[in-house]
Amino acid sequence: MLTPPVNFEIQATEGQARAAVLTTRRGVIETPVFMPVGTAGTVKGMRFEELESPELDARIILGNTYHLWLRPGIETIRAGGGLHKFIGWERAMLTDSGGFQVWSLGALRKITEAGTEFRSHVDGSLCFLSPEVSMEVQATLGAEIAMVFDECAPGEATLDEARRSMELTLRWAQRSKDAFDRLQSEVLGDETKTKDQRPKTDLGQALFGIIQGAGHLDLRRESLERTVEIGFDGYAIGGLSVGEEKHVMMDVIEDIAPRMPDDQPRYLMGVGTPEDLIEAVARGVDMFDCVLPTRNGRNGQAFTARGKLNIKNARYALDQNPLDEFCSCSVCRRHTRAFIRHLYQSGEMLASMLLTHHNLAFFLDTMKRVRQAIRSDQFAKFRRDYTGS
Amino acid sequence: MLTPPVNFEIQATEGQARAAVLTTRRGVIETPVFMPVGTAGTVKGMRFEELESPELDARIILGNTYHLWLRPGIETIRAGGGLHKFIGWERAMLTDSGGFQVWSLGALRKITEAGTEFRSHVDGSLCFLSPEVSMEVQATLGAEIAMVFDECAPGEATLDEARRSMELTLRWAQRSKDAFDRLQSEVLGDETKTKDQRPKTDLGQALFGIIQGAGHLDLRRESLERTVEIGFDGYAIGGLSVGEEKHVMMDVIEDIAPRMPDDQPRYLMGVGTPEDLIEAVARGVDMFDCVLPTRNGRNGQAFTARGKLNIKNARYALDQNPLDEFCSCSVCRRHTRAFIRHLYQSGEMLASMLLTHHNLAFFLDTMKRVRQAIRSDQFAKFRRDYTGS
Repeated sequence: MLTPPVNFEIQATEGQARAAVLTTRRGVIETPVFMPVGTAGTVKGMRFEELESPELDARIILGNTYHLWLRPGIETIRAGGGLHKFIGWERAMLTDSGGFQVWSLGALRKITEAGTEFRSHVDGSLCFLSPEVSMEVQATLGAEIAMVFDECAPGEATLDEARRSMELTLRWAQRSKDAFDRLQSEVLGDETKTKDQRPKTDLGQALFGIIQGAGHLDLRRESLERTVEIGFDGYAIGGLSVGEEKHVMMDVIEDIAPRMPDDQPRYLMGVGTPEDLIEAVARGVDMFDCVLPTRNGRNGQAFTARGKLNIKNARYALDQNPLDEFCSCSVCRRHTRAFIRHLYQSGEMLASMLLTHHNLAFFLDTMKRVRQAIRSDQFAKFRRDYTGS
Repeated sequence: MLTPPVNFEIQATEGQARAAVLTTRRGVIETPVFMPVGTAGTVKGMRFEELESPELDARIILGNTYHLWLRPGIETIRAGGGLHKFIGWERAMLTDSGGFQVWSLGALRKITEAGTEFRSHVDGSLCFLSPEVSMEVQATLGAEIAMVFDECAPGEATLDEARRSMELTLRWAQRSKDAFDRLQSEVLGDETKTKDQRPKTDLGQALFGIIQGAGHLDLRRESLERTVEIGFDGYAIGGLSVGEEKHVMMDVIEDIAPRMPDDQPRYLMGVGTPEDLIEAVARGVDMFDCVLPTRNGRNGQAFTARGKLNIKNARYALDQNPLDEFCSCSVCRRHTRAFIRHLYQSGEMLASMLLTHHNLAFFLDTMKRVRQAIRSDQFAKFRRDYTGS
């Protein structure tokens, strides 16, 4: 029997919160973990050297199947030796399935049993994404963790709509799993491939299932149960932070996270603010990704210990303080709000670079402190101090 | 008597080429040196940490008086404690006078004996720059080296036009010197200023004169002679690379550089390609600045040992080589042409960041090799190998 593609070992718990170690063929990831989003093979505005520096020490980043499939295209990435080699990132990666991205296209896409038809945002060509295509693309990308191809229901979906969507996601989950298993055995068993073309070890990719069901807890529970029946290496809560009210999101997490398999990673997709992350950790979630630190950084917003700060604000024009006086990142050690505001007003790239760096440092440091708190049985206090909960 | 604001010591020569050490109150600069351009207080797309890293080790960068004066404005920079403190750069800087920038505005500016009137490109307001204003702004910026406020003649200027322009520049040079001396003695002698507001040592700023005269060698010689009569800490050749033919530029450098004071720094403004730099060093020039590595980088062009490379070119789509196979910079060690082309085609900031980094590494490394060659009496060979001259 092969070694499992990822290994997950819980080392400390406090209430529902867990501090664990997720071992992949590209390094060890301490959880709870925040994964910076690297949409098109780059965490926008960041050199990989910065992500690897002790200050940020991002152990895993996310790649978007939809974006990479459309551009540069899978042949280019295959020629480059897979996503890691193509972009020059040796640490772990997770790829999403493209399901959420094509769903987000709204009127521009058509969903059928077979899959999703849509027009490329790059060149307008007609494209088709399905569980089988997504699995094939993700196998070529070669991230340590791949995701099933799912469908998402809108935040305000009725019970009927949400059920239809959940049933489709379950059928697609099974098809994803079948296609994934075929591809993995091909890769692992293919003696015609040179050593370099095959995985570095006998660990192949891991595949995570996705729980859907909108804000309907009964559907969410059914989705969880039937997804676990198919059997995956980890499980994600999808379809949140898509327009529903905040309390709906927390209700779903509170109800579902603790029911997810205890001995496998739990991943909350696309969420959220530092407060959201801490609240989700308190409910048993291990992994997160979100564009907030990067996208908001480019839009002039900094996350700080005292809340959000909009650098465009005229009040910062002469402000000689760092973005966050409690932060020890290289941006806060060196640059003032006045300077970063000047850069932003002047349309200088460095504004985005500095704000993104600080925001990622802030998110990654927050998660580090979360892990330390759980390990020292101080998480309840940490959470109370941070969020007032 | 006060210690001079900069000290210049020639340590080796080969033909006209000189290897020297320029000591400023913010560190030691080995020449010949290339100064990256930091227009608005940022070398576009670069973190200062990268500029300081051993790989690039930029000892001095340039700031643009025109841009900084208009935005964020001199009050903001004064409140931030001067340009170094405002932007967070502790190493040496040189500021231009704004003369060239307002001259470049063309029809948008009006030049009189008093100075230059123009409309701000930021908000359209009417502005006036003169020797006295430029000196005051540059004193507030506080760079180690300031430049006189000059006027530039077009590349194809007639003898009469060029003479008129040169005579104006000479009168402005004297006014710049007078204003500069007043400001320096005020700063140095002002006992009402706290220690922090005064220069760190008894070294004030240095002021360089600028030689004009378009492509007319007799005017250039006269400009040199009369500028030296006024007396400055160093001398620059201005008004080149403004549309004249390449051989005109080299004729001027060849004629003028060796006649410039031997014991003071010689600075060729706004020039050029690596080949231009090497040819100018061979004629006795010590200092350079140019936007080529940064601006062309943002436009997708890489400088390499085998010439320029345009990353937009489809031939690089699957190219697994680094930008420059002879380069050992962090970009070339890590990333392929295929990846950087993908980033560029996708409009990703990282494309500009990587191309700029490589180009600066290439320029700075070339100058380092130039210095080593002069010190080991190998410059003639180096130049022959590099440029075929």
